[in-house]
Amino acid sequence: YVKEGFYARSRESEIRCPDLEINQLVSLENVTERVLSAIKPGLSDKEGNEARKAAEAAIEKESTDKTGLRSDVVELYQGGEYWLYRYKKYTDVRLVMAPELQAAFYGGDYDNFTYPRFALDFAFFRVYEKDKPVVPARYFPWSPAGAKEGELTFVTGHPGSTDRLFTVSQLELQRELALPLRLKMYHGRREAMRAYAARGAEQARRAQDYIFGLENGIKALSGEQRGLNDPAVFKRKVADEKELRSKIAGDPKLAAAYGGAFQRVEAAQKALAKRYAPFVFRRLGGRKLVNVANALVRMGTELEKPNEKRYEEFRDSALESLKFQLFSPAPIYPDLEEALLAYSLEESAKELGPNDPFVKAALGGRSARDVAHDAVAGTKLADVAFRKKLAEGGRKAIAASDDPMIALARALDGLYREQRDWYEANIQSVERLEGGKIAKARFAVYGKGVYPDATFTLRMSYGKPAGYAWGETLVPYKTTFGGLYDRADSFDGREPFHLSAKVAAARGKVELSTPLDFVSTHDIIGGNSGSPVVNADAQLVGLIFDGNIQSLVGRYLYEPEAGRALSVHSSAIREALRSIYGMKSLLKELDASAKAPARR
Amino acid sequence: YVKEGFYARSRESEIRCPDLEINQLVSLENVTERVLSAIKPGLSDKEGNEARKAAEAAIEKESTDKTGLRSDVVELYQGGEYWLYRYKKYTDVRLVMAPELQAAFYGGDYDNFTYPRFALDFAFFRVYEKDKPVVPARYFPWSPAGAKEGELTFVTGHPGSTDRLFTVSQLELQRELALPLRLKMYHGRREAMRAYAARGAEQARRAQDYIFGLENGIKALSGEQRGLNDPAVFKRKVADEKELRSKIAGDPKLAAAYGGAFQRVEAAQKALAKRYAPFVFRRLGGRKLVNVANALVRMGTELEKPNEKRYEEFRDSALESLKFQLFSPAPIYPDLEEALLAYSLEESAKELGPNDPFVKAALGGRSARDVAHDAVAGTKLADVAFRKKLAEGGRKAIAASDDPMIALARALDGLYREQRDWYEANIQSVERLEGGKIAKARFAVYGKGVYPDATFTLRMSYGKPAGYAWGETLVPYKTTFGGLYDRADSFDGREPFHLSAKVAAARGKVELSTPLDFVSTHDIIGGNSGSPVVNADAQLVGLIFDGNIQSLVGRYLYEPEAGRALSVHSSAIREALRSIYGMKSLLKELDASAKAPARR
Repeated sequence: YVKEGFYARSRESEIRCPDLEINQLVSLENVTERVLSAIKPGLSDKEGNEARKAAEAAIEKESTDKTGLRSDVVELYQGGEYWLYRYKKYTDVRLVMAPELQAAFYGGDYDNFTYPRFALDFAFFRVYEKDKPVVPARYFPWSPAGAKEGELTFVTGHPGSTDRLFTVSQLELQRELALPLRLKMYHGRREAMRAYAARGAEQARRAQDYIFGLENGIKALSGEQRGLNDPAVFKRKVADEKELRSKIAGDPKLAAAYGGAFQRVEAAQKALAKRYAPFVFRRLGGRKLVNVANALVRMGTELEKPNEKRYEEFRDSALESLKFQLFSPAPIYPDLEEALLAYSLEESAKELGPNDPFVKAALGGRSARDVAHDAVAGTKLADVAFRKKLAEGGRKAIAASDDPMIALARALDGLYREQRDWYEANIQSVERLEGGKIAKARFAVYGKGVYPDATFTLRMSYGKPAGYAWGETLVPYKTTFGGLYDRADSFDGREPFHLSAKVAAARGKVELSTPLDFVSTHDIIGGNSGSPVVNADAQLVGLIFDGNIQSLVGRYLYEPEAGRALSVHSSAIREALRSIYGMKSLLKELDASAKAPARR
Repeated sequence: YVKEGFYARSRESEIRCPDLEINQLVSLENVTERVLSAIKPGLSDKEGNEARKAAEAAIEKESTDKTGLRSDVVELYQGGEYWLYRYKKYTDVRLVMAPELQAAFYGGDYDNFTYPRFALDFAFFRVYEKDKPVVPARYFPWSPAGAKEGELTFVTGHPGSTDRLFTVSQLELQRELALPLRLKMYHGRREAMRAYAARGAEQARRAQDYIFGLENGIKALSGEQRGLNDPAVFKRKVADEKELRSKIAGDPKLAAAYGGAFQRVEAAQKALAKRYAPFVFRRLGGRKLVNVANALVRMGTELEKPNEKRYEEFRDSALESLKFQLFSPAPIYPDLEEALLAYSLEESAKELGPNDPFVKAALGGRSARDVAHDAVAGTKLADVAFRKKLAEGGRKAIAASDDPMIALARALDGLYREQRDWYEANIQSVERLEGGKIAKARFAVYGKGVYPDATFTLRMSYGKPAGYAWGETLVPYKTTFGGLYDRADSFDGREPFHLSAKVAAARGKVELSTPLDFVSTHDIIGGNSGSPVVNADAQLVGLIFDGNIQSLVGRYLYEPEAGRALSVHSSAIREALRSIYGMKSLLKELDASAKAPARR
């Protein structure tokens, strides 16, 4: 599939994606009052935080019981507001087609986060319910023309996270510790995975998506680090905070309600800084086995607690999705798991020293290689039935298990819990409580014109396809198929700028002036990939798949001069289906949708 | 011609270029001893400088008398060496073909100094002697394959000037005064010319090449300014000088011979800084009339002096070329001349104040507009015969002339001479004398591994076609015709990224994967445009036409990481002749040359 892509030319040949789940937001409800009123005056930070979480868990459970829908309490404005989101869930998702990697990820890590770009980065899934394709009441019909320069367009999606409302002390922690240490970890893992991939072609294939993920992370974090290192950016942040703080200080009512919030957040950052390295490096590396073991060990303990006392990911409302992942039959590669686990154990020892409790508990005096080898060679967790049995057995079965990977996770569970509980009681509690106060102070001073930070939940942004000035010249708003062939020719077909076999074979058939990718001013961030871009008629004109390098500072502020969202143009998708992949029936469906009246 | 290009499809339709002259270097001779021995011990700076110039003039005259060839004494290594260059001159140069501007200068000022690039920036001339095409004894045959990535290639050409051997104090003057003031002047003139061009289509055409020149200059000077403002670049310069100075100081023999040279150059820079603004702004603006008037007024006086006492440009050895320019029948546009003259007079008044002697002498109490209008409206200098008559009449005829443009030049001649003479006596003399000492100290310490600064004379550089890393990705070593069509399509054909009518019409005929432009590591600078790039078999594989923006720091140091020379690929020229311009007989000549044995 990686090399050739996948093309179902009939319904029957579509393939199920075993651990893919789609959640569709169906309602939103403001529950701020109910959540915040649970934090009674006089409670300690720790007690207040626990009361808040209990209230959230109760709201979620009540909603799931009543509606049967997945229900999440979402925190907006760093704790300024709380909303109940309800989702309809689809778990039978089937792949209709996906282009080969070399066409979708053209230019590899080099061209990632860059523009002009020439990637056919799209795929088609079909969602089923009761073995029948879902026919949604509303959808975005296909646009015959596709995105045009300057036209008003909208992007909906589930962007992961932004830190625009962070205080200066939080930003400083990111700049000085969080980003540098995470980058260090990513770099180390990439090297380890490259060494693994060098063992052979099959290993290279197995490691590929993880290496891509690490490279992607390195570029993204580097862009964020550069953003925070940019004196102009940081100056703006400092000036903004100074203004807000002086407005709070200048208004007796605001000062009484919210004064001191910035200072308390700052004190929490200082406490966190002291423990930051362990937060990053007390972690077992692995793609799947380690995560399954951790989840089983934690779940055993958590499920014995009442719903509202559990870690969020084990609340009743989240359990179904968790188990869907936990019991996924997706393939596991033991040699990759072992290489990554061994590397991470060495890394922990190197970064934290041999006397760190985590290192001691994990290694028990043995070498990282031996520990990793024995854990992976001896574990039965690759077997889904074995996982299910352990999960059903609960805490007791976990405690009694002699599976070496379970034993490793168990040996580290206490440290994990101490660390997380300390964080939630001393840092998270302060950030939420004081962050909520700062948010309210901001509303009082500036109104609600500022939108909340991204939280992996649905948001819509507006903007327009637009080029930009960069370096000494102008960058066009779109690229074309002609540019793809030019780029491959310009490198004499050198990797990773070579053409896939299918794209090379279609030369002469492809209409070269067809738009391929385009950039737009939408405010997006990691997690928006796959988001539809729709025009004012709610027609689909493109699919977001990246941002340019100038957009990465967007974690901290929106930069409209040259920061751009990056999409595959809908015309490119149509042209590829027609002239490269020969997907006639899919084309018919698209064209039918384009002709159907818009159902928005 | 600008819009459509020019295409002579037979010998008879080739057109003469009235003021184009080609000089071919035929011999070099080291005359350092003879020049430097003329500067007898005990002479003042001024006397030494005059003695040096007199020696140069004598050498040139002697050579011209003996050989009939144009003979120039060229100063290398900032005065470290002097060489006699002899040239064979050709003045019957005819245009065979030149592509339309929109193909040759694709992307306009935006894409100037940028890469990837898509410009068909070449032309064909044929050189005649006695009305017959010249058949040179040696030439570079056409390469059938063109430039390949990584292959050893050579560039010969006449690059204008570099300042790599400048001392730190000279560089500081550039950074703080010379570049900012010249940029100011260029910006002002560009605005003035844009206002003129806005009067109508014909005015836009007339102003076009000058506006291009100004824009080109603004980008180039901005790149140089950025280079000098880059702390890393300047630090390297300071460190290099510190090392050389400490090596001189540490060696008693070197210290005795060359000690104090840096300090004297620095003192000269301080003196120059005080007069720098008048050097830039005591200047009449114009494309042709003003220059002709200045040259006639100065020539009248200079030719009465013995050869060795004249300003260099009036020495016997240079007179022929000067007169070739002076009496050129190339067109003159009075309205453009007037607009530019009026603007420059206003600018001088603004920058130097109303009481500056130049401003007072130029305006004589009248408005800049009136002075410019009367001078241009009343002058007869557009008439070549009139110019010739004045030149033949010499100083007396010039002094008696009531031509208002001549009168204006005459009124300013004294100030010009005072300024130039002061500069030559106090600055140039010190820079040459002490620069020569520094050069010798450098030879003594480092040997002759460093090549001299560029001086508009022939030099050869070696390198290879090579892409580079920039931003987050790789830049390919070449572009293709496919990329040209992509760029036009990507901007929806918006100016200045639209296709010329001929290039648009050839779509479908052009083989898209043909290389168009390419970059190489050759060390070039302004003046290299048109230089041949030849491979190890001395075949022509490309024509230099630009450098990328990263190469502009090359005025001060060679930057091989991303600084690149930019050429039209020989295959692009062939493909354009074939599929766009239909130049069959020219193609035949090229192909015959490719098959002929190399005559190097």
